[in-house]
Amino acid sequence: MYPKLFTPYQINSMTLPNRLVLPAMVTRLSGEDGFVNQDITDRYVRFAKGGVGLIVIEAMAVHSAKSGPLLRICGDEFKPGLTELAKKIHDTSDSKAVPQIIHFLKIARSGWRQKIEDLSIADIQLIIEQYGQAALRARECGYDGVEMHMAHAYTLSSFLSKRNKRPDLYGGKSLDNRIRLPLQIIKKVREVAGNDFPIGVRFLGEECIKGGYTTEESAIIALKFAQEGVDYISLSAGGKFEDAVHKDGEVLYPYTGYSGDRCMPPMEYPDGYNLHMAEASRRMLRRHGFQTPVVATGKIPSPEFAEEVLQDDRADLIGMARALLADPDLPNKARSGNSDKIVKCIYWNICKALDENFHQVVCGLWPKDEIQAPYSEDTEAPKWSVPEPLNVLVRSGNIRINWKPATDNEAVMGYEIWRSDDGGRTFSHIYSITTSMWTDHLAAAGISYQYYIRAYDLAGNKSVPSNIVRADLPMEVELPPPPKAIARPSFMKPQPMMSKEEVPLKEVVL
Amino acid sequence: MYPKLFTPYQINSMTLPNRLVLPAMVTRLSGEDGFVNQDITDRYVRFAKGGVGLIVIEAMAVHSAKSGPLLRICGDEFKPGLTELAKKIHDTSDSKAVPQIIHFLKIARSGWRQKIEDLSIADIQLIIEQYGQAALRARECGYDGVEMHMAHAYTLSSFLSKRNKRPDLYGGKSLDNRIRLPLQIIKKVREVAGNDFPIGVRFLGEECIKGGYTTEESAIIALKFAQEGVDYISLSAGGKFEDAVHKDGEVLYPYTGYSGDRCMPPMEYPDGYNLHMAEASRRMLRRHGFQTPVVATGKIPSPEFAEEVLQDDRADLIGMARALLADPDLPNKARSGNSDKIVKCIYWNICKALDENFHQVVCGLWPKDEIQAPYSEDTEAPKWSVPEPLNVLVRSGNIRINWKPATDNEAVMGYEIWRSDDGGRTFSHIYSITTSMWTDHLAAAGISYQYYIRAYDLAGNKSVPSNIVRADLPMEVELPPPPKAIARPSFMKPQPMMSKEEVPLKEVVL
Repeated sequence: MYPKLFTPYQINSMTLPNRLVLPAMVTRLSGEDGFVNQDITDRYVRFAKGGVGLIVIEAMAVHSAKSGPLLRICGDEFKPGLTELAKKIHDTSDSKAVPQIIHFLKIARSGWRQKIEDLSIADIQLIIEQYGQAALRARECGYDGVEMHMAHAYTLSSFLSKRNKRPDLYGGKSLDNRIRLPLQIIKKVREVAGNDFPIGVRFLGEECIKGGYTTEESAIIALKFAQEGVDYISLSAGGKFEDAVHKDGEVLYPYTGYSGDRCMPPMEYPDGYNLHMAEASRRMLRRHGFQTPVVATGKIPSPEFAEEVLQDDRADLIGMARALLADPDLPNKARSGNSDKIVKCIYWNICKALDENFHQVVCGLWPKDEIQAPYSEDTEAPKWSVPEPLNVLVRSGNIRINWKPATDNEAVMGYEIWRSDDGGRTFSHIYSITTSMWTDHLAAAGISYQYYIRAYDLAGNKSVPSNIVRADLPMEVELPPPPKAIARPSFMKPQPMMSKEEVPLKEVVL
Repeated sequence: MYPKLFTPYQINSMTLPNRLVLPAMVTRLSGEDGFVNQDITDRYVRFAKGGVGLIVIEAMAVHSAKSGPLLRICGDEFKPGLTELAKKIHDTSDSKAVPQIIHFLKIARSGWRQKIEDLSIADIQLIIEQYGQAALRARECGYDGVEMHMAHAYTLSSFLSKRNKRPDLYGGKSLDNRIRLPLQIIKKVREVAGNDFPIGVRFLGEECIKGGYTTEESAIIALKFAQEGVDYISLSAGGKFEDAVHKDGEVLYPYTGYSGDRCMPPMEYPDGYNLHMAEASRRMLRRHGFQTPVVATGKIPSPEFAEEVLQDDRADLIGMARALLADPDLPNKARSGNSDKIVKCIYWNICKALDENFHQVVCGLWPKDEIQAPYSEDTEAPKWSVPEPLNVLVRSGNIRINWKPATDNEAVMGYEIWRSDDGGRTFSHIYSITTSMWTDHLAAAGISYQYYIRAYDLAGNKSVPSNIVRADLPMEVELPPPPKAIARPSFMKPQPMMSKEEVPLKEVVL
């Protein structure tokens, strides 16, 4: 069904069983000690069990700077845990695994943050060494490769940034200066980890901030990384400190501004919103004779969508973070012809909110209090207890649907909500929810809607569709009476017809 | 050559001679009195002379609130001037003309600004009336239609915004509430101006701010506007107060943040960057059986690009603001097979900077001190005075080209710079300049570049290409010596190898 998606893919010495990639995702499951623990292990073994081609383990620090919960690869004491994790992943399936390695600068609760302008040349030289050592440890621990984090708000991304303000050979107006440290690091990593060790880079296709770089420059960056021998590039977007919103007494979270939305496009963004970034880099690479694969990410919701991207040659590999968090079994389900059993991410960004608030990152669709995705081999789908479980109600300008719960031999996990806005010709899955009531805040008067729901269980088995309900919001855009005080010519300051006191807003009926 | 672009297009009772639209652009040529003056007249007659299909005259206020230089349509005293302007445009060519009518709220130099939450129901009723009266005046003055400004940072855009904070039936979570006033205004305008009067709406395809709406909602907005009988929709992006940067003592300029870049994408953005917005609205309209035309805007640079957009059914009409400012004759040149004579916009955004700094808006490519685009019927192209005028120099990590000036029977207006990054297979026009020297800040080491230039005169006649020069930036990414103080395991705070005092940054050679 997905011929290209499930074709193995070679990256240097590593053979991916398919073209699905799990991009690095914060979990907040580790302790502040930086060691691999059971929760971390369970999380990644779960992804391996689901059959994803490449697992990029969450960012681990190449240095020992203070931070919240974060894995570390900055010393040999972390090697046993990391080795064990790699082994357990490899024992589970043929998924490949690479750690993402990160350097970050200091941030304080006051809002202060260290900037790359504050780094001395010696500091920079140390970062190069730290990346080299981290990559070597990744290899020694049995990983299939390593990914350098050069995206979002972190050190190397700040060097690449068009807003890099260093006045020296590591900054300024020249792209060659801004890319100098990333290239030095790649060179060092290659030198230390060996020519056969797959090395990837994740960086921004667009910064999505005022004066930030766009695909015009990220394509050149991709080309230069390829020239330097990088084995794959993976593109993200935004996630910058520059537009982050500081909350009093908390450290700045780089996904609180517009660029944070662009990094993890929430439900109100179209699917595949950042694909043009991968396309631009890939086009540049191919035009210059490089076959370096490009990983596209950003709200790629389904194997269908992924296959289409590959068929259209818009990317070489498909990164899915939130979709795989919602259902780590997505790859195996798709490969085995069971796409209908996928538990679909709704890009509600509960995961993002949890990270932002320093909680362990789980999916909002998982059963309550679980910190790992459920797993079940059950094949029996939930059933409706009544023939017409779904009801609809139009009230206060909103369409609200509610339903009688379905039943299941194991447990009902949630309900998919499907909507048509074209008289029932096409229905789209627009939401999933664990309760039995939902209000459609995006419904608009003058459009006729139809809804049905499907219940699904822990294995993703879906019930038959419920009955279809129809609803219209009344098209009541009545003109209020004209104001009394219109005078022409009208250079006079307009006089309100009534004062607020006379007619409280909430009592005005329009 | 451009079969679709130059096919006439019917919008209600108005027949556009072609599908090129001049979107409303601030000129700052009017006085604060709001009356049409000679400079304004010259500006729009110049566009008409160039043959653009539809001229949208810069925003004029439907009310008399204080502002800087701004046209007014808020009283009958403005009708003679506006009538004369319409007549002069129509006397010049078959270009159609519609005024854009705007309502805005108060802003202060302190950074304070009035918000839509501050408006009473009576204020809102007044705005509806004012729009109706303005539309009627537009008709009475002889315009071919009217365009309602519902984009950027202005009143109606703030109602449509997903960040609309009104708690009543004009705001809140419901799109129906947010669109209520815009629909009431459309209804009023239609009622007052008549069924045969073309009415258009310009609004945002995306707000491009944190929590702003995207194409998922703008497509619904477009549909609802079409249902209400709007004759065309025109999409812009961003330009919001929410992310604008306040300068002490100056009124907030809504194009100073990221959303301002997205509104008028500068040169570092890809061409047609906002096209997906027009596509999304158009798809929604067609799916619901509406043939309402959609105007796409946002760095659409050339008739070739425009024709392709039309051929691919991504939009129905092509808006070009800056490209037509640079060369109002673009339509006539393209139609008559003289595309090579077009003076090409480089999206340098001098025009935007002038507006931001309260200066009259001109194009940075026009001859110095001119406030209107030059016009010449000359057909003689500039000539090179020497056979190899172009030189290249690589210094300080930059490629700099300079050249011997060309000569012309009238006047050389500037030089186009063309670059190849693929060994001379393809050259792209990347910049234009009026001086005789240029530094390529986007050149990167490891890529081989070739350049040639062409001189052009006031009529846009281009010289033959100059000689081609080649340049490579050296690929010198040398690793600095490893720092001395690396120790593993490395939980110690790293010690910088040298202090800043010992090795001043500028003296470090890498």
